[in-house]
Amino acid sequence: MERYGFLGLGIMGTAMARNLLKAGYPVTIWNRSKDKCAELAGMGAEVAGSPSQVTASCGITFAMLADPAAAHAVCFGPQGALEGIGEGRGYVDMSTVDAATSREIAQAVTGKGGRYLEAPVSGSKKPAEDGTLIFLTGGDRSLFDQALPLLQKMGKKHLFLGDAGRGAQMKLIVNMVMGVMMNTLCEGLALAGKAGLAAEDLLDVLDSGALANPMFKLKGSQITQSSYPPAFPLKHMQKDMRLAVALGDELDQPLHAAAAANENFKKAKALGFSDEDFCAVFKAITA
Amino acid sequence: MERYGFLGLGIMGTAMARNLLKAGYPVTIWNRSKDKCAELAGMGAEVAGSPSQVTASCGITFAMLADPAAAHAVCFGPQGALEGIGEGRGYVDMSTVDAATSREIAQAVTGKGGRYLEAPVSGSKKPAEDGTLIFLTGGDRSLFDQALPLLQKMGKKHLFLGDAGRGAQMKLIVNMVMGVMMNTLCEGLALAGKAGLAAEDLLDVLDSGALANPMFKLKGSQITQSSYPPAFPLKHMQKDMRLAVALGDELDQPLHAAAAANENFKKAKALGFSDEDFCAVFKAITA
Amino acid sequence: MERYGFLGLGIMGTAMARNLLKAGYPVTIWNRSKDKCAELAGMGAEVAGSPSQVTASCGITFAMLADPAAAHAVCFGPQGALEGIGEGRGYVDMSTVDAATSREIAQAVTGKGGRYLEAPVSGSKKPAEDGTLIFLTGGDRSLFDQALPLLQKMGKKHLFLGDAGRGAQMKLIVNMVMGVMMNTLCEGLALAGKAGLAAEDLLDVLDSGALANPMFKLKGSQITQSSYPPAFPLKHMQKDMRLAVALGDELDQPLHAAAAANENFKKAKALGFSDEDFCAVFKAITA
Amino acid sequence: MERYGFLGLGIMGTAMARNLLKAGYPVTIWNRSKDKCAELAGMGAEVAGSPSQVTASCGITFAMLADPAAAHAVCFGPQGALEGIGEGRGYVDMSTVDAATSREIAQAVTGKGGRYLEAPVSGSKKPAEDGTLIFLTGGDRSLFDQALPLLQKMGKKHLFLGDAGRGAQMKLIVNMVMGVMMNTLCEGLALAGKAGLAAEDLLDVLDSGALANPMFKLKGSQITQSSYPPAFPLKHMQKDMRLAVALGDELDQPLHAAAAANENFKKAKALGFSDEDFCAVFKAITA
Repeated sequence: MERYGFLGLGIMGTAMARNLLKAGYPVTIWNRSKDKCAELAGMGAEVAGSPSQVTASCGITFAMLADPAAAHAVCFGPQGALEGIGEGRGYVDMSTVDAATSREIAQAVTGKGGRYLEAPVSGSKKPAEDGTLIFLTGGDRSLFDQALPLLQKMGKKHLFLGDAGRGAQMKLIVNMVMGVMMNTLCEGLALAGKAGLAAEDLLDVLDSGALANPMFKLKGSQITQSSYPPAFPLKHMQKDMRLAVALGDELDQPLHAAAAANENFKKAKALGFSDEDFCAVFKAITA
Repeated sequence: MERYGFLGLGIMGTAMARNLLKAGYPVTIWNRSKDKCAELAGMGAEVAGSPSQVTASCGITFAMLADPAAAHAVCFGPQGALEGIGEGRGYVDMSTVDAATSREIAQAVTGKGGRYLEAPVSGSKKPAEDGTLIFLTGGDRSLFDQALPLLQKMGKKHLFLGDAGRGAQMKLIVNMVMGVMMNTLCEGLALAGKAGLAAEDLLDVLDSGALANPMFKLKGSQITQSSYPPAFPLKHMQKDMRLAVALGDELDQPLHAAAAANENFKKAKALGFSDEDFCAVFKAITA
Repeated sequence: MERYGFLGLGIMGTAMARNLLKAGYPVTIWNRSKDKCAELAGMGAEVAGSPSQVTASCGITFAMLADPAAAHAVCFGPQGALEGIGEGRGYVDMSTVDAATSREIAQAVTGKGGRYLEAPVSGSKKPAEDGTLIFLTGGDRSLFDQALPLLQKMGKKHLFLGDAGRGAQMKLIVNMVMGVMMNTLCEGLALAGKAGLAAEDLLDVLDSGALANPMFKLKGSQITQSSYPPAFPLKHMQKDMRLAVALGDELDQPLHAAAAANENFKKAKALGFSDEDFCAVFKAITA
Repeated sequence: MERYGFLGLGIMGTAMARNLLKAGYPVTIWNRSKDKCAELAGMGAEVAGSPSQVTASCGITFAMLADPAAAHAVCFGPQGALEGIGEGRGYVDMSTVDAATSREIAQAVTGKGGRYLEAPVSGSKKPAEDGTLIFLTGGDRSLFDQALPLLQKMGKKHLFLGDAGRGAQMKLIVNMVMGVMMNTLCEGLALAGKAGLAAEDLLDVLDSGALANPMFKLKGSQITQSSYPPAFPLKHMQKDMRLAVALGDELDQPLHAAAAANENFKKAKALGFSDEDFCAVFKAITA
């Protein structure tokens, strides 16, 4: 039976690879620090000594790295994934990377006869564990079709959006909407506070009607408790807002509300909240 | 058994009074044009000749008028509701009125020994029919407690927020959040469009994660079909955005995203979309 | 020789009336506190005991009151200006009042057969002393023509803009432009500061090219010295920004930059800078 | 007597080099198309066959190229300026280039023992002819001091701001202020127009008080005539607004008014006004 590779066993990667093993797929894993491999090895995963060993021995390799720099290093470094890529082998990069990094990896992989799929995910730790992530993919269609049964073990929704780069753009737009929604929730809570209305009442009303959404419920409650543990760090949200506004620049699409929200997130960074959760923009709005 | 009054039988009022009758309450109704009374009379409602006849014969009278001017006229006009108000009688105005009108009615009613409850609703035709409206009330607490069993036939949630005027403020803040959310949905759809991504894909992703909410689902679909029937007319949304920003002025609360969205709704008015649904702001953002 | 009346001897009014006396016009003055009359009486002014005495004895009466409330009281109060108004007499109100107050005074004056000219000024203490104010007038054209020789002693430019209310609108628009210009100067200084560029260098460059203007020069220098004495209090600027944005609401004219600047001035109020000069918005932008 | 080099004889460069020749300096010129050299050769300039001939034979060489790409090519291309640079020779690049290009040229020049001064100018054709440009410089201080007598023939103000890159940042901030000022002038004119006030009256008032500036006077008049010949193309202004907002992102400085204005310039680009003068943002604001 064909083996599948998995590079990167952080919080997200471990949860995702675990779901593949549970489903019975034979998986070869690699991680920079070896101690992270123990749990999955105990579930039957084979442990490789380098990314190139993984890609050379698997038909499809999945990568879930922390950031663009790590994704780049794991692909292009010594004994990197690229070295093991050969004719027809698939490389599915699920890390969140910028368009330039995505294109560079795509060209390198296809240049060696391999197939590339960009597959960033929407969702964080809990959906990764539950196998309910959302995949926003772009690149090689045949690879998407072939990888789909495995992606279905890790996520509940899988969109193929066209060329490599499309997935990253879609994620940027979704995060832009998320940032403005958070910003307006915070403006609403701030205004309610100054008017002497209880935050709990506003959250209750919002949760009872057509605007009800899981984020308002979860984050609204955290804000009322002045609790900002970084599920999605504010500096990352500000970066995404900035990139979304820049995409609007590139495409001549005015984005007035997003631009205003971006300035608020910048304010929050200036006030020192970069590493708190992005709902800490509330503190900038009420500063 | 004590009778209950109901003034105003428009789309909303008729649905709400019908729910009271279904629940077995004895109701005396009045409407400016008599033909609107027929259906409810057939269900057992008593028809009065004037608002004052209703208030003079009922312990609690509910009013659901079209706008502040109508609410004012029905209360203060000849044979108006005020004439029938006496010691202890309750007047529950569920119309959406500005703070000044609300205070004027409140003072007149309490000045004659009556009790007043401001009770604007969140929700439109369908929730009115289903008895799932949200009541945002302020004013006389004893009246709220006494009217609650009836309000529960008309709505699913009932907040008592303090003095008269509180209900209107809460509604304004909720509508401000709604306006900015709609604005960001439209900016997201516009940006996706210019990037060559399908609107349906963006809506699908938004509906699958933590941002999923009934409004995005319903209105997003309408926008993709260029269909803007006025469930909530754009000019009313712009008015509410303006009033919310003005409340921020009054309370020294900066509201950058709301202010930016307000300008977009103004743009939509300038382009002639005042009487379409407020999701027609999409056409201003992509103009 | 016909006499001219002058009501209100604050900082502005005293300087303006002084210029009329210097030019040789016979002037009858009135002020709420009598001690302010001494200087001008020494220059030959006649002192009256009430506004109505002034208007009853003068062909044209000028008023320069502190705010709309004072303008209203001096006109409508007991022994107020209105009582002395008769057929053909002119009333030139140079106070800065809102449109509603202006219209109310206009109707009262014309209702008694008098003529009304709204004549708010642009410029503060120094231009008042130098006779270089700018008059933005609206109302009775014949009164404008007749008063012009005197207005020319008090100002250097005199625009007749049409109906009463036009002058106030023009002033609002000018102040809106002023507020946004101040806001962008402050954003520029803030950005320069974070970039490690000297404020003095930026001011020097701005003062050397096509953007050079007296306000940047004067206020820029104050900002670099953290000196905010209230020549034009910030709370008044925020009020004017708010009214200008509201005028845009009324006329369906989007004003994105003005709306954003308005939020910054609100922020400055929230931080406690209401009574400092409006250039203190710098402290909100760098907070 | 030492010779001075001059590379690039476009509209700006020709006017600037002419002022050096008029002042009696011996100048060696080069331009990509030779016909542009005729006029200055007639005034005594020596014509060289390549940039490297110029730099190799002159103590200080000035460059005034059209854009970053041209500045890069003239320096690094075959027989480019860099080839002629040796120990102690000065290279003063007056082109408007981005920070990256500036740094790349700076390193190359200093790497060969030369000295580099970045010296972008504020001002366009007329100030270039009149010798009244403003120089915003950064880089080698000794070169600035040595070149100053010549810079004084070309400009009226000369700021040395520190390291290379400082000049470009200062220019960006000045252009940001310019963009917002233009935007607010246009919002003011738009609002006046909807209020029925004459544009000429508003411009007259603005030109009479503390806000008076040459740009409002010149561009305001053009806008009233719907005349938008590109003295400073709108797409370049939008690019500078974008870069200024990005600088704010980098330095955590919120710039709400600049961000709002940037969106308006984007709108103007989307409407097809990229190649008109930047005051054509008026058409986007009134669209």
